[in-house]
Amino acid sequence: MGESNLSVVLHKVNDIRLENTAIREPGKGEVQLRMARVGICGTDIHFWKHGFIGNLKVASPFTLGHETSGIVSKLGEDVTTLKVGDRVALEPVMTCGRCDKCKIGRYNLCPKMAIFGIPPCDGGLAQYHLHDANLCYKLPDSVSLEEGALMEPLSVTIHAARRAGITLGSRVLICGSGTIGLLSLLVAKSYGASQVCVMDLNESRLKLAKSMGADVTLVPTTKDARGLADEIEQCMNGKPTISLECSGAPLCVQSSIYATDSGGCVLCIGLGPDDVTIPFVDAVLREVDVKAINTYPNCYPIALALLQSGTVDVKQIITHEFKLEQSLEAFELVGRGEGIKVMINCE
Amino acid sequence: MGESNLSVVLHKVNDIRLENTAIREPGKGEVQLRMARVGICGTDIHFWKHGFIGNLKVASPFTLGHETSGIVSKLGEDVTTLKVGDRVALEPVMTCGRCDKCKIGRYNLCPKMAIFGIPPCDGGLAQYHLHDANLCYKLPDSVSLEEGALMEPLSVTIHAARRAGITLGSRVLICGSGTIGLLSLLVAKSYGASQVCVMDLNESRLKLAKSMGADVTLVPTTKDARGLADEIEQCMNGKPTISLECSGAPLCVQSSIYATDSGGCVLCIGLGPDDVTIPFVDAVLREVDVKAINTYPNCYPIALALLQSGTVDVKQIITHEFKLEQSLEAFELVGRGEGIKVMINCE
Amino acid sequence: MGESNLSVVLHKVNDIRLENTAIREPGKGEVQLRMARVGICGTDIHFWKHGFIGNLKVASPFTLGHETSGIVSKLGEDVTTLKVGDRVALEPVMTCGRCDKCKIGRYNLCPKMAIFGIPPCDGGLAQYHLHDANLCYKLPDSVSLEEGALMEPLSVTIHAARRAGITLGSRVLICGSGTIGLLSLLVAKSYGASQVCVMDLNESRLKLAKSMGADVTLVPTTKDARGLADEIEQCMNGKPTISLECSGAPLCVQSSIYATDSGGCVLCIGLGPDDVTIPFVDAVLREVDVKAINTYPNCYPIALALLQSGTVDVKQIITHEFKLEQSLEAFELVGRGEGIKVMINCE
Amino acid sequence: MGESNLSVVLHKVNDIRLENTAIREPGKGEVQLRMARVGICGTDIHFWKHGFIGNLKVASPFTLGHETSGIVSKLGEDVTTLKVGDRVALEPVMTCGRCDKCKIGRYNLCPKMAIFGIPPCDGGLAQYHLHDANLCYKLPDSVSLEEGALMEPLSVTIHAARRAGITLGSRVLICGSGTIGLLSLLVAKSYGASQVCVMDLNESRLKLAKSMGADVTLVPTTKDARGLADEIEQCMNGKPTISLECSGAPLCVQSSIYATDSGGCVLCIGLGPDDVTIPFVDAVLREVDVKAINTYPNCYPIALALLQSGTVDVKQIITHEFKLEQSLEAFELVGRGEGIKVMINCE
Repeated sequence: MGESNLSVVLHKVNDIRLENTAIREPGKGEVQLRMARVGICGTDIHFWKHGFIGNLKVASPFTLGHETSGIVSKLGEDVTTLKVGDRVALEPVMTCGRCDKCKIGRYNLCPKMAIFGIPPCDGGLAQYHLHDANLCYKLPDSVSLEEGALMEPLSVTIHAARRAGITLGSRVLICGSGTIGLLSLLVAKSYGASQVCVMDLNESRLKLAKSMGADVTLVPTTKDARGLADEIEQCMNGKPTISLECSGAPLCVQSSIYATDSGGCVLCIGLGPDDVTIPFVDAVLREVDVKAINTYPNCYPIALALLQSGTVDVKQIITHEFKLEQSLEAFELVGRGEGIKVMINCE
Repeated sequence: MGESNLSVVLHKVNDIRLENTAIREPGKGEVQLRMARVGICGTDIHFWKHGFIGNLKVASPFTLGHETSGIVSKLGEDVTTLKVGDRVALEPVMTCGRCDKCKIGRYNLCPKMAIFGIPPCDGGLAQYHLHDANLCYKLPDSVSLEEGALMEPLSVTIHAARRAGITLGSRVLICGSGTIGLLSLLVAKSYGASQVCVMDLNESRLKLAKSMGADVTLVPTTKDARGLADEIEQCMNGKPTISLECSGAPLCVQSSIYATDSGGCVLCIGLGPDDVTIPFVDAVLREVDVKAINTYPNCYPIALALLQSGTVDVKQIITHEFKLEQSLEAFELVGRGEGIKVMINCE
Repeated sequence: MGESNLSVVLHKVNDIRLENTAIREPGKGEVQLRMARVGICGTDIHFWKHGFIGNLKVASPFTLGHETSGIVSKLGEDVTTLKVGDRVALEPVMTCGRCDKCKIGRYNLCPKMAIFGIPPCDGGLAQYHLHDANLCYKLPDSVSLEEGALMEPLSVTIHAARRAGITLGSRVLICGSGTIGLLSLLVAKSYGASQVCVMDLNESRLKLAKSMGADVTLVPTTKDARGLADEIEQCMNGKPTISLECSGAPLCVQSSIYATDSGGCVLCIGLGPDDVTIPFVDAVLREVDVKAINTYPNCYPIALALLQSGTVDVKQIITHEFKLEQSLEAFELVGRGEGIKVMINCE
Repeated sequence: MGESNLSVVLHKVNDIRLENTAIREPGKGEVQLRMARVGICGTDIHFWKHGFIGNLKVASPFTLGHETSGIVSKLGEDVTTLKVGDRVALEPVMTCGRCDKCKIGRYNLCPKMAIFGIPPCDGGLAQYHLHDANLCYKLPDSVSLEEGALMEPLSVTIHAARRAGITLGSRVLICGSGTIGLLSLLVAKSYGASQVCVMDLNESRLKLAKSMGADVTLVPTTKDARGLADEIEQCMNGKPTISLECSGAPLCVQSSIYATDSGGCVLCIGLGPDDVTIPFVDAVLREVDVKAINTYPNCYPIALALLQSGTVDVKQIITHEFKLEQSLEAFELVGRGEGIKVMINCE
């Protein structure tokens, strides 16, 4: 194949390059995809700027990109569920399928889990990419390729809301109004939350949150955790029953615990520092659960159902679109904290 | 008090009367209410026409009416949570508060449960009524008295959807499009259902269902349970994950079981004949749960939150409104199967 | 390989034969097993005597046997988790691993599920058998090969008790005291049931139930469902919170519903006639759930943990042991309704 | 009544007195009890030595004692469920019965909750005490008064195990082997745990744990949280699926999180310092839930069922018994860290 495969490759901390990589042929059970849309995620930026997240380190060059959609360009052996030309969203989580965790349906806890676009696995911010056919979700005509790429962060928030137990009548606090915070807002409403408060320091993001359905928004004016909890309660006219912590800031984890109603749950999506000090006795006496999530087992089908039924409009968080050739420019922009969802068009 | 207390009293089967009853003074913990709106329910009609439901018999005259709202007119001793003039919705379920069922939160299973408006307890289709202050939910300004009265059937459908496990991405079949079927539709969507099919023989009701958000509607063309299940699957382009059976017809119970996806649930709201034959082996092999509900423990607060947040618009099911003086006329109309929700204005 | 492979093959209804079949070589991911112990199950007898269960028909000859243990005799390609000589129990349920049901952990509902020893799949009542290495559970030294074979019916009862919600303090009714009823007794106690009543017409089986820990036993004296429910309540000094129906008799399903406490569950393990009439209004008004099970997703690891820890002693249900050569004699005995668990020694 | 009412009254920090208090007459719905057995709890000691726990302060003198049993000596008005002479266990938790938390069955989170024996409420370490008849559980002949008193800490561990999700096959770590740790061991086994490890610095307590059924015991040899987690995993031959933290030591909270299997739960029973630093990223990436409990909603009936059925033998944790007159001596002994459960005989 004489074509190019322009790819965004992270070589090491602060060394991101737009370069050609080999176009590979799909193996058994795989498909080759002409990539369509790829969202840039805070995780991508973190690897670029710091070279690691937790135990995951950038040890050798790999292609970035895990919020992706593409078009099937070749079928590997034994692939019967897709055909060339199908528009698909790519679930990035690859697991063994055989361990106890996989078999009970919590495959995101599989000890052999690998995530495409997370080191050391190549991702999809490129012209071509190979993927397990079973992890490709065919998009119906009514779902756009941009929406397909956003199924990844949407799935994060679905798993979060589900684990937190958001349901009809829940009063929900969301800390942070980036991509995850805003999609959490849409998803919390879809699960039946009757009141959602979004909190952030960035007022323009809160304005978007408001337009996307937030009942109330809050700009914190204190760095004291108890004081901030008071502000939340005042703003929401009572305690939230569930808090989704999307910022990773210890202050937000702490004030979420103080603010959340007895018997409620603080669900942590945002990764923060390795160790965080929590108001332990308060959480114990009021039975406030502290939970967290890693990726999104069994969420892609739900995300797709939501998009197909028109329940959520995720496109409103896309603030910028770049061509694949402009990817480094796009990374610079996101690195400066500008925009919300920046989408790369690989076509 | 020299005032009248016009009341709709059921004396015995086929003997309903509009007559004056005594106005009583509120006891300790009670409030006296000037009744505002009362919906007529299929249950009322059944008692009128048949004199019983299951073990519950019309043994002596009692005032009808359990879908009610009112305005506090007098406070009994020790009532601190309400004041005269408050607009409230009345939860009809009265329980002991002390048995194991009450203490674990399933107070609808309390062996001492009594329901106001269900024999032998007087209901609220009258000018004045006494009620436990703890069962009166204060309506905010944004919630109308009509909506307050509709909190009762709304609570039925909330409990049903919750027990059935409707959640984000559920595909839901609703059998029957009367009050309960239509409110189930609104509530299923609020819980996150991505597809709802409403089935009924009455096409004009299905038209309303469609306008209220049903994704698809179905008029059955067969009385064969398996054949009907096939029609449902064809209409929904797959099996529903959950079925809410609101008709009480054995055919619908049976076809719901056949139609529901493996691992799903058929939740029976409608009461039918004492004994129903179900496709047992099909339910067993595919792990389709058959569940049911009786009233609505802990649902009034959720119903109120939904109305206050504007999540559901229940008023669209009100087809007729009558004055209290016209109640017998209203009962005749409902008895003929006309209208959906007929509301009595007691003011 | 010049060895024989004596196998118990069901050709068609009433035509069971002991004959030689080919010894096959293990494929990729498979192991070849020298079979050790195989329990005879009521299902085997039903296929032999009637030629079908539900949609499953004996269309062509197949080897029986799904309650099995064996010793690894050869490894297929890519098998790394086992070695020749390992003693293993064989989970019979084979699924696609890729569909929504498999991925959420309910792989027993996989549309492609096949069960070894159930037509048309060959089972393990033979000298040699091939099996997916991932479905072979290595037995520690403390667990015998007989116990390994009994992990299959033990898993049935684990899944049943789990779906029924048996927990600390449950009061459990068990209808039927064959293999499944008796193992259900052990498992219900292991889940924390504080009272278990076993009901059967066979008094000698009830005697065994008593010696295995049943708190009370009951021989029904009526065929009236309500009357039988009264006998159960009298015997248990109250209503059971959960009933495990292991007989498949409609009378038992009905009386279980009447007998079970409001808010409880009747879990059907036994398959009965295609259609069963249930006391519908009673179940609805008292919120008694009717559930059922098919096989045992994710139960083999639990069954193994129970045996290894010595929590349950399953061997006490074994009443007879036969050599593989005597298999037809063993089937005759079970066919006459004698014994409880009859075990074939294939070594 | 000319009788004395010798009572153990805590006046202020470090000021505990044995003195006479008034014998009161039971009010409506109350019973007067001649107290029988009262266990001394770490909480009693903490109030005595420190004068507070969290927000609860010793502001004025109050009678200690919340692990109690007694004999009904007088009936107040309207008491119909008990008679003079009944032997009962006393549930200490008094709630409003009307708020949302009470109505959903989580009455331990009632904002108006008061606990008898916890300031400012008088407890039962006295000759006579009044109690709500609804909170008195009649003991059958087979349950002793000592066991009745131990229903309180037993209920703590039942609620803990239930919230943690201990079930058949769970592998459980218990940090601490005092009263709560040892009862947790019994209860974890009753819920079906297949392996329980008890960890403590006190080897003689671990010896008791072993005799009470602990599969393994561990004396930590490091103060490094990760290192301790390694010791736990080595000792248990794998990661526990659930940890019950009964010590309140931050090191134990931290190492429990590191040690617990992905998708598992660390349930905190022990109160520690107000703020505790937890390994946040580890908990997030592996979805280890951190939960806690406050008292024991709806657990007394379960505790009673367990004792009545003989499932657990709680008496083996009683190491000392004192007469009421020797109470101060008993407090000194417990204050020195001696014994496990010290029981006061008030008769």
